[in-house]
Amino acid sequence: MIKENFNVKGEPLVSIISAGLSKFGKLDGLYAREIFAQAAKETFDRCPNLDPKKDIQALFVGHMGESYEHQGHTGSTMADWTGLLPVPATRVEAACASSGAALRVAIQAVRSGMADVVMVGGVEKMTHRTTAEVTEYLAMASDYPFEQWNGITFPGLYALMATAHMHEYGTTERQLASVAVKNHYHGSMNPKAQIQKEITLEAAMSSRVIAWPLKLYDCSLITDGASCLVLTKPELTKKFTDMPVHIIGSGQASDTIGLYERESFTSLASAKVAAKKAYEMAEVRPENVDCAEVHDCFTIAEIIAYEDLGFCKPGEGGKIVESGETRLGGRIPVNTSGGLKAKGHPVGATGTGQAYEMYLQLTGQADRRQVKDAKVGLTHNVGGSGATATVHIYRRD
Amino acid sequence: MIKENFNVKGEPLVSIISAGLSKFGKLDGLYAREIFAQAAKETFDRCPNLDPKKDIQALFVGHMGESYEHQGHTGSTMADWTGLLPVPATRVEAACASSGAALRVAIQAVRSGMADVVMVGGVEKMTHRTTAEVTEYLAMASDYPFEQWNGITFPGLYALMATAHMHEYGTTERQLASVAVKNHYHGSMNPKAQIQKEITLEAAMSSRVIAWPLKLYDCSLITDGASCLVLTKPELTKKFTDMPVHIIGSGQASDTIGLYERESFTSLASAKVAAKKAYEMAEVRPENVDCAEVHDCFTIAEIIAYEDLGFCKPGEGGKIVESGETRLGGRIPVNTSGGLKAKGHPVGATGTGQAYEMYLQLTGQADRRQVKDAKVGLTHNVGGSGATATVHIYRRD
Repeated sequence: MIKENFNVKGEPLVSIISAGLSKFGKLDGLYAREIFAQAAKETFDRCPNLDPKKDIQALFVGHMGESYEHQGHTGSTMADWTGLLPVPATRVEAACASSGAALRVAIQAVRSGMADVVMVGGVEKMTHRTTAEVTEYLAMASDYPFEQWNGITFPGLYALMATAHMHEYGTTERQLASVAVKNHYHGSMNPKAQIQKEITLEAAMSSRVIAWPLKLYDCSLITDGASCLVLTKPELTKKFTDMPVHIIGSGQASDTIGLYERESFTSLASAKVAAKKAYEMAEVRPENVDCAEVHDCFTIAEIIAYEDLGFCKPGEGGKIVESGETRLGGRIPVNTSGGLKAKGHPVGATGTGQAYEMYLQLTGQADRRQVKDAKVGLTHNVGGSGATATVHIYRRD
Repeated sequence: MIKENFNVKGEPLVSIISAGLSKFGKLDGLYAREIFAQAAKETFDRCPNLDPKKDIQALFVGHMGESYEHQGHTGSTMADWTGLLPVPATRVEAACASSGAALRVAIQAVRSGMADVVMVGGVEKMTHRTTAEVTEYLAMASDYPFEQWNGITFPGLYALMATAHMHEYGTTERQLASVAVKNHYHGSMNPKAQIQKEITLEAAMSSRVIAWPLKLYDCSLITDGASCLVLTKPELTKKFTDMPVHIIGSGQASDTIGLYERESFTSLASAKVAAKKAYEMAEVRPENVDCAEVHDCFTIAEIIAYEDLGFCKPGEGGKIVESGETRLGGRIPVNTSGGLKAKGHPVGATGTGQAYEMYLQLTGQADRRQVKDAKVGLTHNVGGSGATATVHIYRRD
């Protein structure tokens, strides 16, 4: 087992003093660096007391794929384009959990004493590539010799999980579609979402099959976008803002790179371990969580996330989405941003993009999609078919 | 300027309790994960008091390119293949400084209190690709719109630095070749080096031109390899080993991704900032360094490194290599391992591979290439044409 030796229990690890998000969608004619600069600009504008060049001492950037723009070395590129040179800048990659993992690394940088103020974000530019190219680049996050080689792609891998879940628990295609309907409803209220319109259950159910039982509306989007946070030590927060959001729990865990090696297809062991660690660190239980952003790369992934995070019992994920418990106004609203499904999934930007939504929710800035009296939030970011998972827990003062 | 708030000055930040290195060279028929497992095995075997599965709480992996093996998500892949699941595992990429940057992240993880024992390493599998493919993949660490697009590759970028250095300081092709001769001499004594034979100055000078003034022997190698370290808190060292090596300084800095935007072509601003930070933190001056591994991706890079690290005055790098000051037995032996030039340059593995050499030197295990009474060592790891640089300083008890 992983042992972690926090001497801080339930107390803030670090505090978010500002956050920014670019528009998510098809951002023609922009390089990733320009999109990242958009997110950074919102972050800087939102916090007038922050002098980025003077205050920010390190930058961590979640970025998944060098192939999209034929551009690696993304850490220093983003430092350059956000005016932060010569700050130490490091790219972190953990597939679609790249910026979730970057967030954890950034927390460690602050807590190490090696930096008081750190910027962390994520970015991906994808839509200038064909769907076939994107599918191929994403597949690099699965196992080359045993998965990619045999032609399986991520829709196929998640379809295997979906059929296993249907077989084991009786989960239905209608329940999968209910995730899409809910998240598109939430996305319709997010002016930065890639798709801002509601869809009907019938439309979702009758969309074309991608990898049965997953249909077009069961799949997240191909998106350009970037996200940013600025973190500091809790005791330095007052210098920058009266409205910080504290990160009180951080968990990350790994699993086999290949899905075929797992004991279960209906649960992600990595997400369960990461959640356990984060809950313990935060001294928070699932029932204390007021809202969450979870990794709905496919609708089945959101259903499994509910179960792995303890929002319901194993096998009941389909039921709680169908009954509306995870819809805005329900027991625990999930993916109020629209999620990867409607807000979009610029893969490297997703983890800190989820944190951005928690920042808005916990500071009461989520406008029409505000969760009333939200005090504790959670983000769940998954890489690949679950070889990486990160869970972070947030609270306001 | 970057401010860093270490409360530890000259004291160990973390301690290396074990280290391992795969054979460097053309390792046909192996995946990166298998090569990394070789390095991990040496690391584990070297430290019988370490129970990897029980003790290691996080893994950081420097890995530059997903393109070589069509495989990203390298953190959890390496955790899987070294038996460390479900440990949090994160890939760090900063071009050829990937594992130098990973080392810094790993130091922060230990110092954050979030992990007591951490493994950090790097890996790359390159030789199964053609030279043209490798050149293209490496080029992703340069600026796409303004460098790659115009056809310049890394030999070309470093050739620009070399001609500038020749113009500004009178550095000669013979001095460049002297770097190669020295490093091949050192490599001839390293049983893990890719090339273990000496070369003559004449052979180096008459080798074919790659990008004038750089000839074949001015260029580092295309290599498969992996490297590993295990770090812990200084106060926990005794549990594991009587012969730790302490890391007492860590510096990292960034510069523009494009060479064309720099004020100087004859010095790397990132390396100078990183060195200054590391020296200050370690309370060490250049003249206190007994041996160093520097980033000799091209011979000119080693000459510039001497100057950026303060081993000589600006412009005198060519002279000190020609006079033998940086050869084994000289004033400050540099690249006793053979360097990127002769040991090889599996790009993601290079940073922690340099640290491995310091571990051997400072524990008196460097055999025929042992630097007598080595007490303080330094590593200098550069990404791209200098958009990233990391400098670490080591000492024994």
